[in-house]
Amino acid sequence: MSKATALFFHAGCPVCVSAEQQFVQALDPERYSVDVVHLGQEKARIAEAERFGVKSVPALVVGGLPFHINFGAALADLK
Amino acid sequence: MSKATALFFHAGCPVCVSAEQQFVQALDPERYSVDVVHLGQEKARIAEAERFGVKSVPALVVGGLPFHINFGAALADLK
Repeated sequence: MSKATALFFHAGCPVCVSAEQQFVQALDPERYSVDVVHLGQEKARIAEAERFGVKSVPALVVGGLPFHINFGAALADLK
Repeated sequence: MSKATALFFHAGCPVCVSAEQQFVQALDPERYSVDVVHLGQEKARIAEAERFGVKSVPALVVGGLPFHINFGAALADLK
């Protein structure tokens, strides 16, 4: 079975990245390969994110649909 | 291997539910069983959601961490 690609767009906040990678890694690896895209470093891919309807980061695109995830960071983790 | 429970809290918007179930079903079924909770119908579980740090719905709790998902509904889907 060929895998679908899930796209995870973010902008580099370290605390957010670690939290959301836990989320991304919960996806079924038999069905999805995940392409993690740092839009701050890969500005050429911003248009690609926009085509999927991504309005903000972090966002996950699964099955062509954008899911905006606003976990953010717990203040306690920033101390 | 025992499965972890992922909790999906929502409040019943049909369009949102269908979109987000696609997302929930992308989770690895080998590792997660998903408990879908309609907080509008199960108000007794609001406190449980709050204990995980859930501030808004829809939200997914994975590994004890809350992820707030604001996919919402495309206006086109509401027409």
